[in-house]
Amino acid sequence: MKRRLTYGMVGGGPGSFIGDAHRRSIALDGKAEIVAGSFSRTYEKSLETGRDLRIAEDRIYSDYKTMAEAEAAREDGIDFVVIVTPNSSHYEIGRTFLEHGIHVACDKPVTTTSAEAIELHELAKEKGLLFLVTYVYSGHVTAMHAREMIEAGEIGEIRVVQGEYPQGWLADADVSDNKQASWRIDPELSGRTNALGDIGTHIENSVYRMTGLHITEVLARMEKKVEGRALDDNSTVLVTYDNGASGTYWASQVARGHDNGLRIRIYGEKGSIFWFQEEPEKLRYTLSDGYVREIHRGHDCIDPAASCYGRLPSGHTEGWFEAMGNLYVDFIDAIIAKEEGTFSADMLKFPTTLDGIYGLTFVEACLESSENGNKWVKLPTIQE
Amino acid sequence: MKRRLTYGMVGGGPGSFIGDAHRRSIALDGKAEIVAGSFSRTYEKSLETGRDLRIAEDRIYSDYKTMAEAEAAREDGIDFVVIVTPNSSHYEIGRTFLEHGIHVACDKPVTTTSAEAIELHELAKEKGLLFLVTYVYSGHVTAMHAREMIEAGEIGEIRVVQGEYPQGWLADADVSDNKQASWRIDPELSGRTNALGDIGTHIENSVYRMTGLHITEVLARMEKKVEGRALDDNSTVLVTYDNGASGTYWASQVARGHDNGLRIRIYGEKGSIFWFQEEPEKLRYTLSDGYVREIHRGHDCIDPAASCYGRLPSGHTEGWFEAMGNLYVDFIDAIIAKEEGTFSADMLKFPTTLDGIYGLTFVEACLESSENGNKWVKLPTIQE
Amino acid sequence: MKRRLTYGMVGGGPGSFIGDAHRRSIALDGKAEIVAGSFSRTYEKSLETGRDLRIAEDRIYSDYKTMAEAEAAREDGIDFVVIVTPNSSHYEIGRTFLEHGIHVACDKPVTTTSAEAIELHELAKEKGLLFLVTYVYSGHVTAMHAREMIEAGEIGEIRVVQGEYPQGWLADADVSDNKQASWRIDPELSGRTNALGDIGTHIENSVYRMTGLHITEVLARMEKKVEGRALDDNSTVLVTYDNGASGTYWASQVARGHDNGLRIRIYGEKGSIFWFQEEPEKLRYTLSDGYVREIHRGHDCIDPAASCYGRLPSGHTEGWFEAMGNLYVDFIDAIIAKEEGTFSADMLKFPTTLDGIYGLTFVEACLESSENGNKWVKLPTIQE
Amino acid sequence: MKRRLTYGMVGGGPGSFIGDAHRRSIALDGKAEIVAGSFSRTYEKSLETGRDLRIAEDRIYSDYKTMAEAEAAREDGIDFVVIVTPNSSHYEIGRTFLEHGIHVACDKPVTTTSAEAIELHELAKEKGLLFLVTYVYSGHVTAMHAREMIEAGEIGEIRVVQGEYPQGWLADADVSDNKQASWRIDPELSGRTNALGDIGTHIENSVYRMTGLHITEVLARMEKKVEGRALDDNSTVLVTYDNGASGTYWASQVARGHDNGLRIRIYGEKGSIFWFQEEPEKLRYTLSDGYVREIHRGHDCIDPAASCYGRLPSGHTEGWFEAMGNLYVDFIDAIIAKEEGTFSADMLKFPTTLDGIYGLTFVEACLESSENGNKWVKLPTIQE
Repeated sequence: MKRRLTYGMVGGGPGSFIGDAHRRSIALDGKAEIVAGSFSRTYEKSLETGRDLRIAEDRIYSDYKTMAEAEAAREDGIDFVVIVTPNSSHYEIGRTFLEHGIHVACDKPVTTTSAEAIELHELAKEKGLLFLVTYVYSGHVTAMHAREMIEAGEIGEIRVVQGEYPQGWLADADVSDNKQASWRIDPELSGRTNALGDIGTHIENSVYRMTGLHITEVLARMEKKVEGRALDDNSTVLVTYDNGASGTYWASQVARGHDNGLRIRIYGEKGSIFWFQEEPEKLRYTLSDGYVREIHRGHDCIDPAASCYGRLPSGHTEGWFEAMGNLYVDFIDAIIAKEEGTFSADMLKFPTTLDGIYGLTFVEACLESSENGNKWVKLPTIQE
Repeated sequence: MKRRLTYGMVGGGPGSFIGDAHRRSIALDGKAEIVAGSFSRTYEKSLETGRDLRIAEDRIYSDYKTMAEAEAAREDGIDFVVIVTPNSSHYEIGRTFLEHGIHVACDKPVTTTSAEAIELHELAKEKGLLFLVTYVYSGHVTAMHAREMIEAGEIGEIRVVQGEYPQGWLADADVSDNKQASWRIDPELSGRTNALGDIGTHIENSVYRMTGLHITEVLARMEKKVEGRALDDNSTVLVTYDNGASGTYWASQVARGHDNGLRIRIYGEKGSIFWFQEEPEKLRYTLSDGYVREIHRGHDCIDPAASCYGRLPSGHTEGWFEAMGNLYVDFIDAIIAKEEGTFSADMLKFPTTLDGIYGLTFVEACLESSENGNKWVKLPTIQE
Repeated sequence: MKRRLTYGMVGGGPGSFIGDAHRRSIALDGKAEIVAGSFSRTYEKSLETGRDLRIAEDRIYSDYKTMAEAEAAREDGIDFVVIVTPNSSHYEIGRTFLEHGIHVACDKPVTTTSAEAIELHELAKEKGLLFLVTYVYSGHVTAMHAREMIEAGEIGEIRVVQGEYPQGWLADADVSDNKQASWRIDPELSGRTNALGDIGTHIENSVYRMTGLHITEVLARMEKKVEGRALDDNSTVLVTYDNGASGTYWASQVARGHDNGLRIRIYGEKGSIFWFQEEPEKLRYTLSDGYVREIHRGHDCIDPAASCYGRLPSGHTEGWFEAMGNLYVDFIDAIIAKEEGTFSADMLKFPTTLDGIYGLTFVEACLESSENGNKWVKLPTIQE
Repeated sequence: MKRRLTYGMVGGGPGSFIGDAHRRSIALDGKAEIVAGSFSRTYEKSLETGRDLRIAEDRIYSDYKTMAEAEAAREDGIDFVVIVTPNSSHYEIGRTFLEHGIHVACDKPVTTTSAEAIELHELAKEKGLLFLVTYVYSGHVTAMHAREMIEAGEIGEIRVVQGEYPQGWLADADVSDNKQASWRIDPELSGRTNALGDIGTHIENSVYRMTGLHITEVLARMEKKVEGRALDDNSTVLVTYDNGASGTYWASQVARGHDNGLRIRIYGEKGSIFWFQEEPEKLRYTLSDGYVREIHRGHDCIDPAASCYGRLPSGHTEGWFEAMGNLYVDFIDAIIAKEEGTFSADMLKFPTTLDGIYGLTFVEACLESSENGNKWVKLPTIQE
């Protein structure tokens, strides 16, 4: 029997959607238990959340620094921390826990600049610690199967990628009654980008995870479509990959008629693969024989490297929590392997600071392009 | 803060799909914790499972009777038991826990005969205990919204129902490499019916839950399509409801091309509603204006009585575990209300022994019809 | 260059939908030209339609008998007649033209009783004439490909068929503003059945065309769902085929949410095929490997015996007129072959009086079943 | 009764797909009859085609000039000519017939340069002649309904447009066995662009027809994805409209998995509209109430200005020929109105040289942009 890990959380207090979502995703598999946390800026709210979660009061902390120190000092200190605070604080919090020798899982974006992300990446390597960045959509079985197919050469060399992520929830001019919406469109809280940074990076990461291709340059058009918006709510990016393929990414929050429409279409010399986040239980692909094939999670035609993540038989729908849970399954297994001395690099199946760095250099290049008349901007080469 | 309940499980040992699925569904919300169990026929396997689940060894029991007694005697005994054993044992186990004053959640079918189900129903009433029968599909937000729409009269008086549940997993003659398949087709373990009892009853319950209509008579054709099968694997039932509407139910396990295709279409005087289990995040309906409307979970157009069960924003896919979890949410809330003295009948939103009785009288009438040349057979009237 | 045939029409006067539809379908290919007709009960209306169609006045007739005689007497008389009158007159008109040595195309149902259909069948054989009954849906390329696949054994021996034809256009109680609707629900004009006879027979014929299976017995439930209706508007039929397979057919005109939803699903030992009239450009099938395959008209994976009927490249949508046109292409080619002495029985690819007989014996058995408490009724064996 | 017009055709000889397609589309409605033609470069082939079409030999011409002269001289000369020759000859042929006072219908692109198109536009105006450019997709009832909805303000001011036209038929490196393919990729025959000019212009025209928006500038990336290609086979264009809205157009012939995937999505302040060429019988739109509505051709919810073009009841599928036929219906009605003196500008419902000019200035700007490092290029303002 594997040991059940323990974890703490920074952020995720009353009303937080994402903290709650991480906790449920971890609970689904029961491989780790929450035992500590600093959930809110005010200690009282932290206490409230902590008690709701049945956490012992001495492990409910007033701030993340105290928490990192105290947990690092305990014999039974947490195995990892989950960071679900506003983006601008990820860097400081992540660094603090790494410095105290604690593995980190952090919501995306890992930091707000690529320089910070590189720093965390180096620090984690130096400390021998694991760092999960929760790009949730790469956790779907069908997304993993797409990666296996592409790696096996089933669609041949990739030529063209079409990635889109349309949402409609910010289409109204007045979104003041929606807390989530309010902070998304506020530069103080969201930094220099909204649509591209929030959802465009999911396109970027999903394509990277499926294809392994690196973006070499971008030409971006980041637009504010709703009057009065300070940040982009509709962004389009032309992309070139290191194998010469080209792509177009479209991220929009003013696209009524879509809920959470992340869709990736990959066209290779021999075939194509279509993946759609809102129908994550199936994958469509076409080879040169002209048949359009649909593969369903749970069937033998799914690659074992992907199908092993399924929890239910085919047709018994899995969704977002399961995808997020899959990232944690790999992360937790890797932590245990570290402890047991059986860890090897191929266990890094989950997105890490490296994914975070790719995402941030992508965003930074897009901002430079968009602010300079939509010119082509090269991305730096990243040392893995 | 609400108290976190504790529960025990009977069944769900090594290799059990359904026990694991119930545990995950409950874990998703963290409203109850597993603290006891008798998971297998052999104590050693029970121990193995119990330890995996971090259960104290003195609460891992060799058999359900010992468990019921011991837990009833403890100050901190379990609040409810979850029964996920083979169908034929449900009655005895359910009765035992009820007799010991413990609330029961039981996988469907609640028993193997309607007489047994009625007995449990009466016993639970007499004891003031709650009994959840886990017809999972009624737990979907969209299924609940369908019920709200129909109750509000949006499609008018119902005229016709088409329910189907095609699966393809038993289409091969040789299913010996599939343990699930083997016991499904074995009369020793599955009783007098396979397709109709296993999945046909999900049609019956889903329609009942959505429409509130009771079946008054059936004409059933239960067939064995794969050579050598002893039990039905393709069954069709003509149905008459108490309001004069008519329905057709089709349950098949030899229908290649389907995974778990429970689909309910309800046609009323003013409109129609289509619900499909494999795409549970949306509902289609049409009124007389000719527009086909699609409603997505997470949007304001979902009735609050249904939308409150959602855990994620629209487009962030929920599935089977969430549906099952919703049944447990209502069940647990009702148990707490019982304890706190705030319980009222309208909290019985989850399927109970009453649903179980309806299901069994339906199956019994179908068997009688099918074994007698597909004649019409009336269903008994059930005292609620 | 093939000779262009000439044809005449009986029925299809002002306001007739179906006469117009036949003329357009024939015009699409230009293989036959309309040169004569008796379009209405009144000569004046006939004249009006005939002039619109640029028909010489001496070939616009006051009644079909005069027309048959006159055309038979002309050197350049019509090659075939198209009958698009109300159903009850098909028999007399068909017989008259056959007796005058003229090939016949007739809208379905070919007659109102199977006895009449058999008589026409015998008469045509005796005279060496061709008789097309325009079951339009068998003319779709994808429907023909389904037939080829089944004949080639690709889905193995057939076990189960699900056929449905839901429409919503008669769901309202008051349809008095719809002329089509008014005569459909009137027993004087529609005979003893509405839904089953009008659209149920399309299910029956489509299944027969695709599978080649003959129905041996039926159990029918023909219902009037709208208050005040004299004829069935919602009919369900359990079916047994000569190979032991079973089927369920559902034809409804009160099913809001559907336009013209003929859908055929065929399940064999090795695979299944799904065909849907409203999306006639594609076909879905699944074999035991678990892949759901979609085939699109215009691709090489369509059997040449079917693909040859396509007029446009893949993705350039074809529809109802093309399907109807395909029946006429085969009919006209067969007439020419008759003239040229090159005719052989395998040119009878189109539906004939034989299909008409099957349809009528099916309806007659259903009526008997439905009127006698939904008992099983055997179908007579038909001499081809 | 309306007069039946007569027409001649230039091009459309043996093996021509598009000439045949135009003839069938016109035949569907019987409003015009082909009576003259010059179908091929060689007179013999012309004769062959002409005889097949039952054209009198004295009206089968060796070349288009002779034809224009002769037909203009005849009392019963053709009412209009249909030009379906290779693109490079459209200009000369069109001009010749206009000069002889004959109305023109011409396949797109109307010419190869905008200067030529403007010349034809002016000439037609000067002569009082009509000029149809057959952008077929604007002829769909659902596309027309989209236009009506947008004009009526139902989705509010337009913000974003996503247009795509993926095809897979040129994905193979070797397409030498496909005649159509061979000339498409040959700069001698196709000019300076393939994908953008052939199918990208259908996106441009469809958006223009639906929205009425004019493009003010473009940034284009025209790529050759298959090794050895001389012309673009995958092109992406960023677009700005005169109301400030932005668009992205993607045209590809290397996108396996698509047949003829023209898809237009239009997002306004109040709602969005999705139209897909391969499913032309329906339209999806979403307003701020969150319901996704599907409208089907044939229902009352289709605007009368669009629904009047339907020929069949809802659910009886119409397709490409009907869409093309609708353009001809409007063109022919306008010619007759010209003759009868009842013509008014609002009868110009069909695409004309003006659409052709828009298409060519779009292509020219894209070429300039793509050849100059994907910079923004302004489009000239067109005098209507």
